[in-house]
Amino acid sequence: MKTINFTPGPSQLYPTVPHHIRTALQEEIGSLSHRGKIFEELFLRTVDSLKTLLSIPSDYHVVFLSSATEGMERIVQNCVEQESFHFINGAFSQKFHDISKSHYKKTQSYTVDIQKPFDYHNAFIPQSAEVIAVTQNETSNGWTFLENDIHALKAKNPNSLIAVDIVSSVPYVNLDFAKVDVVFFSVQKGFGLPAGLGVLIMSPQAYEKSLYMHKNKSIIGSYHTFPTLIKHAQIGQTPETPNVLGIYLFEKVLRDIHKIGLSEIRAKTEQKAQQLYTYLNASDCYIPLITPVEHRSKTVIVVKGKEKLSVLHEKLKTKSLVVGNGYGEEKDTQIRIANFPTHTPLQIAKLLKYF
Amino acid sequence: MKTINFTPGPSQLYPTVPHHIRTALQEEIGSLSHRGKIFEELFLRTVDSLKTLLSIPSDYHVVFLSSATEGMERIVQNCVEQESFHFINGAFSQKFHDISKSHYKKTQSYTVDIQKPFDYHNAFIPQSAEVIAVTQNETSNGWTFLENDIHALKAKNPNSLIAVDIVSSVPYVNLDFAKVDVVFFSVQKGFGLPAGLGVLIMSPQAYEKSLYMHKNKSIIGSYHTFPTLIKHAQIGQTPETPNVLGIYLFEKVLRDIHKIGLSEIRAKTEQKAQQLYTYLNASDCYIPLITPVEHRSKTVIVVKGKEKLSVLHEKLKTKSLVVGNGYGEEKDTQIRIANFPTHTPLQIAKLLKYF
Repeated sequence: MKTINFTPGPSQLYPTVPHHIRTALQEEIGSLSHRGKIFEELFLRTVDSLKTLLSIPSDYHVVFLSSATEGMERIVQNCVEQESFHFINGAFSQKFHDISKSHYKKTQSYTVDIQKPFDYHNAFIPQSAEVIAVTQNETSNGWTFLENDIHALKAKNPNSLIAVDIVSSVPYVNLDFAKVDVVFFSVQKGFGLPAGLGVLIMSPQAYEKSLYMHKNKSIIGSYHTFPTLIKHAQIGQTPETPNVLGIYLFEKVLRDIHKIGLSEIRAKTEQKAQQLYTYLNASDCYIPLITPVEHRSKTVIVVKGKEKLSVLHEKLKTKSLVVGNGYGEEKDTQIRIANFPTHTPLQIAKLLKYF
Repeated sequence: MKTINFTPGPSQLYPTVPHHIRTALQEEIGSLSHRGKIFEELFLRTVDSLKTLLSIPSDYHVVFLSSATEGMERIVQNCVEQESFHFINGAFSQKFHDISKSHYKKTQSYTVDIQKPFDYHNAFIPQSAEVIAVTQNETSNGWTFLENDIHALKAKNPNSLIAVDIVSSVPYVNLDFAKVDVVFFSVQKGFGLPAGLGVLIMSPQAYEKSLYMHKNKSIIGSYHTFPTLIKHAQIGQTPETPNVLGIYLFEKVLRDIHKIGLSEIRAKTEQKAQQLYTYLNASDCYIPLITPVEHRSKTVIVVKGKEKLSVLHEKLKTKSLVVGNGYGEEKDTQIRIANFPTHTPLQIAKLLKYF
């Protein structure tokens, strides 16, 4: 029986990926020079395709990193001279905060109570915060920010850069990029690709900040500073030898998603999320971890139960259905179910049947 | 006609790689969790296999990065508090130097004259140099350090850490790891794998230095500091979601190379290098770029000609034989020929036939 992976990432591959990998072998992508014309065209085509898909403004920059975690580090190095502010709604936003701390920046934060209605207007954000960091969809617990709440941040804090982690909500999340500055994700979640590639999107304002910091003799890194990344990206290159196969596969899956259309993908994601939450709400044994309905993630559904969920986890495994453990200390007491474009309503029905 | 890639990296895939990629698809490696037992065992097995192959001492640490360029950055961050020293024998050693500079370290260097007999004992290395950086095999021009010259550095400079770039000479290079401290490479050259994975090897002394620097409040990075990398590696994990497929394929190719045996691989590399240099020495049109015979790379053979070599390059292409351009400004005036374990004497004979 073929396994279906509902793990929140690496997750089930997008259905076309095995085919694309075989095509990559035929086209000898593993030997492709990253300094040649074919790669340059691939790079520029991939960036164009992503910009069109997510409606990213034309003057924004898109570059490749190796992971979303690298995204956090590069943002701190290139945009935070003194001080950052962090909304903390789980383990990954905590990590972003800690990465800023490890660079000896002054950090302030607002910890979201994931069980109560949320009014972030209560959060005191100092005017001195150079970056306001938001983990839009917490992969650790499924607590999700409303897009409009993020968009409102920029209007209230025009001098701060808004950094948004969309690791486990892209391409479903509907961000207005003109209202955010640095956005990052990795490809092994919503895009259903093998792990090992990160994507970073930068506004002109974020780029300006990195230039200012460099001029001011801040250490902004070496081969992966914003200016170095952008200078190379403009001619379809990368500073180092990148994950060429990863970029190739990403371009192919972007194409496949364009064919379906993002509005269709978003509508289907919502239908499947409803399928899951409707079941959980009616269940006697399982409940969604997050209480406020509007903050429940549509793409990473986190479940707690009356009994240890490691039992359910093991039972599902015998049916070749793999869900994610709870994160960190919640390993045995929660499970996480990914609802990505690769997952079908039928697969989710099958999963719920064995609950 | 199937292309044969003699490019110095990405290069021709190791012959078994397409098969391993197909097996990875069957085993659903693209969906494998990097936090599960299967990955942990894969990680530890890969490190063991590499340590055995290259005779790396058991108390040395092996971790994964995303590129060799990242290796340079992490070494500077974790081992250079004030000052580094660089042997400069081409573009990549220059890059290592520049990465230290971009972190505002004091750098000194000794520029090797690649056309004259080399006596590095002439180089003045200050006792204050915390790291002595050596690019053992310059991919840009094929000038190569003798292993014994590198080993002698440690005896003369016991308080410095010896950092060695073996990007385009591994697994051929025969280093005594007990006499060096930080060694790095990427897998798309001698190991014939798709690009997107770097490897960093650290001595206990290098690890101690990173701990000292962290204690002394130097910024040593965040998710990829030596202590964080090592802490995770000890339990077969990585701080971020890594290139899982890359690690899987690396382990498979290590297995294949073990089967043949490294001494056999080294002997064959020397035979094939001789095949190339013998031809070049007898040729009226082409000569090896490097004059001193003992410093001519066995793995990246760089050729200059009486006429522009872009003509030869194009002619070879029509025969589905791809060599590397000259590096940087030498794009049209030189060619670079990789001689990696994947390349056979027959393939090299075919290449030379069309010279």
